[in-house]
Formats: sequence, structure tokens, C-alpha cells
Amino acid sequence: MLSATIAAHPAAAATTLRQRHSLRPCQPLCVPIGVAAPTRGMATARPSVVKALARKNIKGVPAPKLSFPILVNSCTGKMGKAVAEAAVSAGLQLVPVSFSAMEVPDGKCEICDREICIHDPSESEKILPSIVKEYPDLIVVDYTVPDAVNANADLYCKLGLPFVMGTTGGDRQLLHKTVQDANIYAVISPQMGKQVVAFLAAMEIMAEQFPGAFSGYKLEVMESHQATKLDVSGTAKAVVSCFQKLGISFDLDEVKLVRDPEEQVTVVGVPEEHLAGHAFHMYHLTSPDGTVSFEFQHNVCGRSIYAEGTVDAAMFLYTKIQSGASKKLYDMIDVLREGNMR
Amino acid sequence: MLSATIAAHPAAAATTLRQRHSLRPCQPLCVPIGVAAPTRGMATARPSVVKALARKNIKGVPAPKLSFPILVNSCTGKMGKAVAEAAVSAGLQLVPVSFSAMEVPDGKCEICDREICIHDPSESEKILPSIVKEYPDLIVVDYTVPDAVNANADLYCKLGLPFVMGTTGGDRQLLHKTVQDANIYAVISPQMGKQVVAFLAAMEIMAEQFPGAFSGYKLEVMESHQATKLDVSGTAKAVVSCFQKLGISFDLDEVKLVRDPEEQVTVVGVPEEHLAGHAFHMYHLTSPDGTVSFEFQHNVCGRSIYAEGTVDAAMFLYTKIQSGASKKLYDMIDVLREGNMR
Repeated sequence: MLSATIAAHPAAAATTLRQRHSLRPCQPLCVPIGVAAPTRGMATARPSVVKALARKNIKGVPAPKLSFPILVNSCTGKMGKAVAEAAVSAGLQLVPVSFSAMEVPDGKCEICDREICIHDPSESEKILPSIVKEYPDLIVVDYTVPDAVNANADLYCKLGLPFVMGTTGGDRQLLHKTVQDANIYAVISPQMGKQVVAFLAAMEIMAEQFPGAFSGYKLEVMESHQATKLDVSGTAKAVVSCFQKLGISFDLDEVKLVRDPEEQVTVVGVPEEHLAGHAFHMYHLTSPDGTVSFEFQHNVCGRSIYAEGTVDAAMFLYTKIQSGASKKLYDMIDVLREGNMR
Repeated sequence: MLSATIAAHPAAAATTLRQRHSLRPCQPLCVPIGVAAPTRGMATARPSVVKALARKNIKGVPAPKLSFPILVNSCTGKMGKAVAEAAVSAGLQLVPVSFSAMEVPDGKCEICDREICIHDPSESEKILPSIVKEYPDLIVVDYTVPDAVNANADLYCKLGLPFVMGTTGGDRQLLHKTVQDANIYAVISPQMGKQVVAFLAAMEIMAEQFPGAFSGYKLEVMESHQATKLDVSGTAKAVVSCFQKLGISFDLDEVKLVRDPEEQVTVVGVPEEHLAGHAFHMYHLTSPDGTVSFEFQHNVCGRSIYAEGTVDAAMFLYTKIQSGASKKLYDMIDVLREGNMR
């Protein structure tokens, strides 16, 4: 009831969520296949970068921004495009090369006014070595397809390329084994929404530390996603599992799935422009005598949270590499534990 | 927005929250001052009690309920009365003696159809030793006044009486020192709402583990309490402190305090019958680009949650004493970690 006084979901307001960067003159950034680009034209390829200084250690002096080369495989997908844009916004150096099975006009696509050369995935094994040579600090971000997860990981490992695996699916056990055997730096996480991961981790810690704390409480769960998503969200399942450890009797088939667009807009409050891509979750707990209630909500529109989380993961991985960390394989919990790096 | 589909706070429904026990014939339960009651008439004073068996270990056989003598000091206050009633409901043996500076008709009051003899606090030092002798497993619950906290703790410790200190205020450092020096079993907690403590602990763990995770997010906080409470609630301050560690810029003077009864009923959703005693809290987080929001609410009507939490604390303390635990001084986090004992 308290939420009645809070404005409707901010994304519901008809504002442009992201400022458009002013247009810059088109630069010939595409690296010809198999040819190392001349040093003079590669002003954006810095062989070494400034280590990020902990902001809190230098009073009043903004720490230099963390920056390093990042290749997004693939820029042509919606997630890849969002990550590439978020990376540029964050000051990272977007390598003007990507891979995609999609046909793209002139073999190029545009990200933040930068031309990105798109090659067929079958050429990645041939092209990537020269990219790695040109950008020794390169980190790859993978948003491809489940069927490509393991083959891509094999290739990155073969080339010694640190990577962030944002693509879900594939053989996850094999993926982890490949990375561990190759001793490669990587962040692997099926959920890149950093703050959602933090919320879920808090619930898991609460459930593990305080079993049965909510015994006797009643639980109601509602989630809303785009109509094409037929199953209960993995996050909802994970949170329900926490509540079960907290002593609540609840079956997954009691979760209320809202998939009707009209109900999503009028009742749930999903902005119309995000009907095709949103993840709204609500958990409501009531004490046995009805005098106490708790409510938790996490509502996501679009994919910005995942793009930003992926950039955080890449930045985290970069600092680990620079510091020569002995641990190589990480997840979003590790990224969260590191703290804010921007 | 999702809460719109959840029924209004359950306590808003005009139902009687607690069933009245059927009347039993009045029994002469008052212990004359200074005289040990004859064994025959003390059927309710069991010298030893059955240890609680873990329910999960015996399939299909309900574990015997935990039971032991409990003295509530004072039954005449609202919290004390609620705890005494909750203790009886939970199957504990309410000792028919209490203390109060209030004048009560015939020096007695009634709790769940049991007569409780009320003595002046100045007589507690004289009376309690005989109570302790009669009920060797006795645990005292203290809900008195801040000015009595330290003197009462001194007395309980002098008599070797384990206790649960629900009264807030007094000199807390001295209170802890007194208990530690006397090596007495005690649960001390200014917040007996167990589930609220669990929620706050989860927030604290999240903030400690994931500093800066919500950097850049905007926070809105609203809390509603009875009009007589002029300051921001301690729980709200503690949760805000967590969000600050999580990277959010927020000042306590930004907390919206709702104290107008009309707004509390129509906007916040506080049931009218609980206007004089409620604690509603709402925290709303929004991502920098407005595409993500989180909301946490904890809404308490009346004092049932504190009474039940106090009974949980007493039960917890009893099991610690029975098991001869080396640790003596506990708080609600310890109670939570133990799990459900009912």
C-alpha cells in the first residue's frame, strides 16, 4: 500500500532513457582481415592502460577512469549491442571488430557512431589472433547463442583471451572445466543483472543463516515477463527456494504468472514500451495472525541492467588480470564483492 | 505497482486477531508472600520439563512442545501483557506472580483466565527468591521501564535468574557488563520483532559483502508510526545506513515521516484500529536510467510480532541453559540462527 505514494515506475515516463552522443566524423576503424593495422592509425589502441586508483584514497581527486580494449561478440544481437553501447559510455575502447552469422549491409554495423566490421563466426579463429596481437589487454564479451557457448570458450581459451560469458545455455559444466583447465581469466554468470544478483544473494544468506525464521508466514509471488516467456523465471524460483528454507510452505505452481499485456500495463505497471522485454517480480509475506507483512519487489525494464552489469564484470576482470590475481574463474558474486569500480 | 493486486493489509479486515480461551474455574494460584506453596496445589510447577525433540528427526510424531516456567515482569504493561498471553498460547507455564508500580484492583490481574498476583517492584528482592526456589527452571521476561533496566538486571543476576530483556533504554553498556560479569544466561535485544531483525540482518550482510553495488541508484524512504513518535525509527536509520554502504547518497532528513492519521489510513494503508501502534516502512530504489526499481516493505500492526519474538527468545534461552551452552549472553541474531523451535 505504501507504494501508492511513490511515482509509477520511472521508465513509464515518456523520457529518452539514454542521451544520444553527438555525431563524430566517420573514422576508418575496420582492421583489414589478416593485416595488422599501422600503429599511426591505431591511436585508440593503447598498449597499456592506467590502473584504476581507489577513489576513496585520494580526497577530492577523481580517479582516472578504468579503460581497456573490449571486443563484443556479437554486436549485432540486442544484448551485444546494448553491452557495446554501455562499454563506450563507460569509457572502454570498443574494438571495431565483431562476429555474426547475420547478414549485415557492407559487412559493417554502427555502434555509437563507430563502424564495426562484422565477420562470419567461422572466420573468428583466423581473425582473432591478429586482434589479440594488436590489443594485448583485450577482453572479450560473449553474447552469442547457447549452441556456440562451448566452441567459443574453447577458442578464447586456446588464444589465451580473457572473457566474460554472458550467453546462457550450452554445457555449463564443460564450460567451467574448459576455463579451469586452460587457466584463463573469465567471468561466467547466467545472470548479469548485478543488483538482482545482490538481492538474491541477500535472500540466500538470510535463509542460510536464519532457517525457519518465517515459519507460519504465508507467501504470495507474482512475476511478469514478455508474453513469449512461458515458464517461471529462474530468479523467482531461486527466491522461492530461499523462502522455503525460511520456513514457508509454498509450491512453485502457486506463483502467479502475468503474461496478458493488458494486465501487465494496467495492473502490474509495466511501461508499454517494455512489454516485449521486462522482468517484474513481487514477493508478499504475511504473518500467521495477519498483523505483519513484508514485501520485496525487483522490476526490470529492457536490458540496460544486464549491459551495465556485463561492463562491471569486464572492468572487474581487467583489474584482476592487472593485479595478477591467482584466482581466474569468477562469477557475479565476485564482481559484487569487489565493490564499485566506476 | 504490483502490490495493487495484493489485498489490503490483512489486519485491515475486521476480524478478531486472537481467539479467546474458554473460561476455566478460578484457581487459587497466587503464592502468599514469603510462603512456599504446598506441593499438591502446585500442579502446574513441574520441577523438570521435557526437552524439545527436533521435529524433523521423528517422522510423523509431533515433537513434545517445549515448556518451562516464565515470569513476566510486568504483566500490567501492554507489552508484558501481550508476552504473557503469547507465552500461554505457546504452552509455557506462566508463573502467577508479577510486579508493577501500577495500582491494580485486589492486587491481581487476569491473563488468559489465570489470576496473577501483582506486587510492588520494591518487594521483588524479597519475593523472587521463593519463586526461584519453587520454579528452578524459571526464565524472567522484562518489559518494565528504561529507568528500571539496570536495577532489574542487577537483581536477576544476583539471584542467578536467566532473563530476556525486552525493555529498551537504561545504560546498555552497563547492562551487558553486569550480565557478563555475573555469567548469567540472558537474551538482550532492543528489537524483538524477529523477522524484522532477519530482514535488517540480510540488508547488513548485503551491504557488507557488496559495497557500492547500488552506486548511482536513487533512494526514497517512507515510514509511518503512531503520531506520538516524533523521530525517525531506529530500524529505518539502520536500513538507510546499509543503503549508504551500498553506494547510495541519502540523508536521513530525506526520510518521509507520515504522522497524519488520515494520510496513514488512506494513503499508507494502516488499519484504523492500529493507528495508535504500528510501524510501516517502505524503501524504494531506482536505477540511474530509471529502468530498474527495487522495493522493500516491512509493515507491523500492534505488538504481536514483538510478543512472539520474545517468546521465541525465551524458548531459545531455555534450550541453551538445558544444553549447558558455554556462551551466556545472546541477542536476536543468535535466536534467529537457532532456527524455529515451535
